[in-house]
Amino acid sequence: MAEMNRRVLLKSRPQGEPVPANFEVANAPLPEPGEGEYLSRTIWLSLDPYMRGRMSEAKGYAANTGLGEPIVGGTVGQVIKSRNAKFKEGDFVGEYSGWQSHAVSNGAGVMKLDPKAAPLSTALSVLGMPGMTAWWGLMHIGQPKPGETVVVSAASGAVGSMVGQVAKMKGCRAVGIAGGKDKCDYVVKELGFDACVDYKAEAGNLFKAIRAACPKGIDVYFENVGGAVQAAVIPQLNDFARVPLCGLISSYNEMQMNPGPDWRMLLIKRVLVKGFIVSDHFGQMPEFWQEVPPAVKAGKIKYREDIVKGLDAAPEAFIGLLKGRNFGKLLVQVSDDPTRN
Amino acid sequence: MAEMNRRVLLKSRPQGEPVPANFEVANAPLPEPGEGEYLSRTIWLSLDPYMRGRMSEAKGYAANTGLGEPIVGGTVGQVIKSRNAKFKEGDFVGEYSGWQSHAVSNGAGVMKLDPKAAPLSTALSVLGMPGMTAWWGLMHIGQPKPGETVVVSAASGAVGSMVGQVAKMKGCRAVGIAGGKDKCDYVVKELGFDACVDYKAEAGNLFKAIRAACPKGIDVYFENVGGAVQAAVIPQLNDFARVPLCGLISSYNEMQMNPGPDWRMLLIKRVLVKGFIVSDHFGQMPEFWQEVPPAVKAGKIKYREDIVKGLDAAPEAFIGLLKGRNFGKLLVQVSDDPTRN
Repeated sequence: MAEMNRRVLLKSRPQGEPVPANFEVANAPLPEPGEGEYLSRTIWLSLDPYMRGRMSEAKGYAANTGLGEPIVGGTVGQVIKSRNAKFKEGDFVGEYSGWQSHAVSNGAGVMKLDPKAAPLSTALSVLGMPGMTAWWGLMHIGQPKPGETVVVSAASGAVGSMVGQVAKMKGCRAVGIAGGKDKCDYVVKELGFDACVDYKAEAGNLFKAIRAACPKGIDVYFENVGGAVQAAVIPQLNDFARVPLCGLISSYNEMQMNPGPDWRMLLIKRVLVKGFIVSDHFGQMPEFWQEVPPAVKAGKIKYREDIVKGLDAAPEAFIGLLKGRNFGKLLVQVSDDPTRN
Repeated sequence: MAEMNRRVLLKSRPQGEPVPANFEVANAPLPEPGEGEYLSRTIWLSLDPYMRGRMSEAKGYAANTGLGEPIVGGTVGQVIKSRNAKFKEGDFVGEYSGWQSHAVSNGAGVMKLDPKAAPLSTALSVLGMPGMTAWWGLMHIGQPKPGETVVVSAASGAVGSMVGQVAKMKGCRAVGIAGGKDKCDYVVKELGFDACVDYKAEAGNLFKAIRAACPKGIDVYFENVGGAVQAAVIPQLNDFARVPLCGLISSYNEMQMNPGPDWRMLLIKRVLVKGFIVSDHFGQMPEFWQEVPPAVKAGKIKYREDIVKGLDAAPEAFIGLLKGRNFGKLLVQVSDDPTRN
């Protein structure tokens, strides 16, 4: 039987929480690369909260995924057939192929990966979009100064874990917020945060629990979640606090508008809030490339992967991601990674 | 009868809207300047929305006014007795004497005024705190670029009128929001804004009226009011819009928290919101002093004063200010201005 392109298509738009019926797994013929193109097989697929926005009708940062189309997503692949001189058979590439087992590309926006420099999957986590998101938002919007307190929500996740570790490198007190004892233990004991508040165990007591972890108030709040965590954090911001607004995962499934904090608190404390998306800034990361890869190699910046096997498992894994069920960067292993034991 | 110091004291803290009973007008003995001090008579008292915050129990930018104390406020005065070599009898001074007819000062933070350079009262309006507020917030947070659309609420007021005129100087489309036909006519015909939306006439239709005035969306929203105007503006912000958060006059009298916009809108459009207060930045205004006084002198920047006579009228005038009853910069003439016809 000829090899097929296995794809996860958006069958219907989620109304609120996505459900398995919103997705359809289907085979298509393997695409053929044209002149100047190559065909790759997907090894790793990154699952990220922003994808929820692409499944909606409403305008987001970017065009949404059409019904019947494969869902978008960052991937690592290997070239298996090439009509592009820059990409040879066997090359590893960081791509944006989406939820499918194979893809054709003309190479635009594609980065070649050296598996000796770093594990291939890190191009989707600590050295990829989530890592750069954490870096850019913290350094350019958060502007942490030594001795300040940096709070980050979803602290054990791909972005949050990096935010806190970079905050520590910059001489700050790093306080995480995460769901469950295991995640909080990991954040403090493995990643070296100063404290971590378990928002599930402390539900109803979140304000006080955060205050106890931030005795000098909060200078930077790296926002990944919104909702009850946000409501407990904002009143504890110090004068001149900065809020890199990276994500609002708690409200991605909400259909209604979701009121934000009273702006009087932002006014009185002269707070800065700035929404951002890292793809606007991919060209502005010289310090990221200088500082982060060596720190990862030296084990000073740690990361954790939560790996799901097989493309067919992607819908369930993604539904779980929006509920905080993953522990570390959520990746789908779509096919064999020959560089990994 | 010896001259007395007439003062307006905070008798009780307003619960919601201030009422006349919250204020008490009372005479006190004229204070005597000590060594290094001078005594001035107040000529002009500025009434500004921020004063509402100082009347509350809740923490604001600064310490609040104590019960039985004169309310704070910027003033222009004339020295009538001096034991400070730097201030001579007859000198005009920009001070922060508050709601009283006389005050003693050691000169700290006081600016000498030259009535030949500009009318004394402008030190409280276009060349004073409101003018600098408009300038700093627009230029440093708003960062307007030629061709962009700048929207400002409370557009006929001391701050708003300056924001729109500076936006025009910088090559932007300037759109005001104000209450009533007279104010809107003034904003367009006198101040030269491109359009002005009457939020009273357009109540219920505000979103569409603003859209009609801003066909290319909104790049800078200079926020003075909050409430329904804010709710209509925020969804019309363009990608990368900037929101200098200067005031929220519609909610100053509210006792409850007042939910703000859904942060998803700020995230998707990568909006920047920054609360500020001009007194943090008084030292950072070289361009203001270079550009604004000549433009005012040349009549390129216009201003309008709404003058109330006599200190006793201050409480009613202030109550009206919070309801938008003033038209132009609200000033109390406490005593004779010898430089004015």
